[in-house]
Amino acid sequence: MPNPTISTDDVITILERIRARHPLVHCLTNHVVKNFTANVLLALGAAPAMVEHADEAAEFAAMADALLVNLGTLDEPQIATVRRAIPSANQAHKPWVLDPVAVGPLTVRTRFAREIVALHPALIRGNASEIIALAGQTGRGRGVDSGDPTEAALSAAHTLAAQTHGAVLVTGPIDYATKGTKTIACANGHVLMTRVTGVGCAQGAVAAACAAVADTPLSAAVAAATLMGLAGELAARVSTRPGTFATALLDALDQLDSATLQREAKLS
Amino acid sequence: MPNPTISTDDVITILERIRARHPLVHCLTNHVVKNFTANVLLALGAAPAMVEHADEAAEFAAMADALLVNLGTLDEPQIATVRRAIPSANQAHKPWVLDPVAVGPLTVRTRFAREIVALHPALIRGNASEIIALAGQTGRGRGVDSGDPTEAALSAAHTLAAQTHGAVLVTGPIDYATKGTKTIACANGHVLMTRVTGVGCAQGAVAAACAAVADTPLSAAVAAATLMGLAGELAARVSTRPGTFATALLDALDQLDSATLQREAKLS
Amino acid sequence: MPNPTISTDDVITILERIRARHPLVHCLTNHVVKNFTANVLLALGAAPAMVEHADEAAEFAAMADALLVNLGTLDEPQIATVRRAIPSANQAHKPWVLDPVAVGPLTVRTRFAREIVALHPALIRGNASEIIALAGQTGRGRGVDSGDPTEAALSAAHTLAAQTHGAVLVTGPIDYATKGTKTIACANGHVLMTRVTGVGCAQGAVAAACAAVADTPLSAAVAAATLMGLAGELAARVSTRPGTFATALLDALDQLDSATLQREAKLS
Repeated sequence: MPNPTISTDDVITILERIRARHPLVHCLTNHVVKNFTANVLLALGAAPAMVEHADEAAEFAAMADALLVNLGTLDEPQIATVRRAIPSANQAHKPWVLDPVAVGPLTVRTRFAREIVALHPALIRGNASEIIALAGQTGRGRGVDSGDPTEAALSAAHTLAAQTHGAVLVTGPIDYATKGTKTIACANGHVLMTRVTGVGCAQGAVAAACAAVADTPLSAAVAAATLMGLAGELAARVSTRPGTFATALLDALDQLDSATLQREAKLS
Repeated sequence: MPNPTISTDDVITILERIRARHPLVHCLTNHVVKNFTANVLLALGAAPAMVEHADEAAEFAAMADALLVNLGTLDEPQIATVRRAIPSANQAHKPWVLDPVAVGPLTVRTRFAREIVALHPALIRGNASEIIALAGQTGRGRGVDSGDPTEAALSAAHTLAAQTHGAVLVTGPIDYATKGTKTIACANGHVLMTRVTGVGCAQGAVAAACAAVADTPLSAAVAAATLMGLAGELAARVSTRPGTFATALLDALDQLDSATLQREAKLS
Repeated sequence: MPNPTISTDDVITILERIRARHPLVHCLTNHVVKNFTANVLLALGAAPAMVEHADEAAEFAAMADALLVNLGTLDEPQIATVRRAIPSANQAHKPWVLDPVAVGPLTVRTRFAREIVALHPALIRGNASEIIALAGQTGRGRGVDSGDPTEAALSAAHTLAAQTHGAVLVTGPIDYATKGTKTIACANGHVLMTRVTGVGCAQGAVAAACAAVADTPLSAAVAAATLMGLAGELAARVSTRPGTFATALLDALDQLDSATLQREAKLS
């Protein structure tokens, strides 16, 4: 199994490819974050599209470069749409990313997430409680917030990665990207990112954009963690309050470049 | 019936409890304002969650600390979801807030709002036309805007408060919070708040956060009016145009503190 | 057929009427842009409302001053709602605007757009690929982005204008407004507008606001192109990055005035 060490150079390559290719990311995401998610992708250099009718989503998942499935405001129409979109993406060999928001305490999404996790997501992105619950273990999630420390989810992440043959990104103060025997700690980020809705969900969309251009799912996971985390750090130098911070975060995604990544990425 | 005079100290206590407890607010709100509502709650110190599948909403309403029902973009799925969520919140003794957006000229929501107003909302928040129409009187609303002066709605507000055993907040240039024989005028606010979509709807979510931690529904209503109104005043000192004002409003909610409230709250 | 030359004075008149009358714009638009669209309308001086239940949309389309139909996240409920709202607007002699987002590569919306284009939109607004596809020609759209140069869509625009007896606005680096034998090039705009989600969709809502107060659909199309384009130019003088640019765009819509239009509108 190929387990290359992921370096800052790999993250830089992924960012350059996003800027050059503008990967089209099909986002089946929750109502709260659609606007912010689209703006995050545009600021980074990717192209967002939300196509939600089940018939059209099946068509579009094959045309787009990657698919994001975020369960934040799951309802029956989204279930039907996701069931059509994932097989279409898979058949067209386009990577898809699963963000199992609030899986654990809520019955419908937990059952549905376990159904679709069998459909080989290239990448799963969740907080510790979500990853633990998705792997069938018992966590302490409360709504969208994790009740568990990130490190407590690593064995669940390994289980899921083995099951999907994809990468898993466990998010928290430090994000952990894992696949096979390799785990990389991504330490960029800022606490203000938790004070703006949708930063985590948008990271899932960034992960899909990265997966569209990356050589491996693991490098896409590391890139998503590092690009969002470093943008958060840059934004926190501009603003210390959540309204202006959210705006600055979009500017920072636009501003990110190789030199800044080379200087400030924190991978280990 | 206990009718304590609500003072600035009560508002300060509520703000401190929100910051300490991060009450989880289950928002069943309209599509236009979901993102802004979540950001308002986060900026203030509360925790937003939008769980919309009817089965999950029933589960989640019992776990969350308060429920908001906003009818702005009412559709049949939301009707089904609300019918499940309110009884669950009631059974778990969690307060719920009704924001009857545009009730009056529109048939379906007017009928539905009258149906659920019987389910004991701790707090109803609406403009004069909405409150008048909800009480079965004849108003002059036009879409989300009120065609009636705030003061004209006070008798309708008293009627609704008596009917629900909860508080009613009538919004306008001056907001009036009423319950039983007590009515409190909350004079904080700024006209720029009407130039940003969702400020009123987000006030409903803030009211739910306040209701989760307040000793009485009336103090929650006064706190919601004062916290949003004062944040609007602070934001208007930073910006005079709607784009930057909206951003500044989120920063101001984060910035609000006891000293500022003590100095600038306008209750009578 | 009246084909007055549209001048900057006409745009100024439309802006002044929007500011004086606050036309109520019923937006049946996509999930990604509802918040931004409402804020754009408010910043300009119009009044947004999103009423989506099919029964209520039929009621409301007759009360509002104009209707926007944007197909960006089309689903079956929206199809049902639009089928009720358009005839109601037509019967009440209220103009409606069609924004055929991503028509072409996606089957359901392409069929539906062709169905409703027969219901006499006062104005159609789309990029070159969308206009070409809507007219039944073969384009090269990719998601929401145009794969065709604006000028290549002019014959399709003429065809649609003749068919609907309305105006057509083809958007791109230069926007072209056409009706009958008259075509006007609107050259205001800035490339940063493509880095913020929903700027184009919000232009459709602005077009509806303009159509509510304009003497002709063609002048509404020219006004929508010029008002959004010039606001974009003003915003780009404040910010060069997408987060702050989006905020500045809302401020600029609020700031637009006759003198600025007189000095900087680019019509030919």
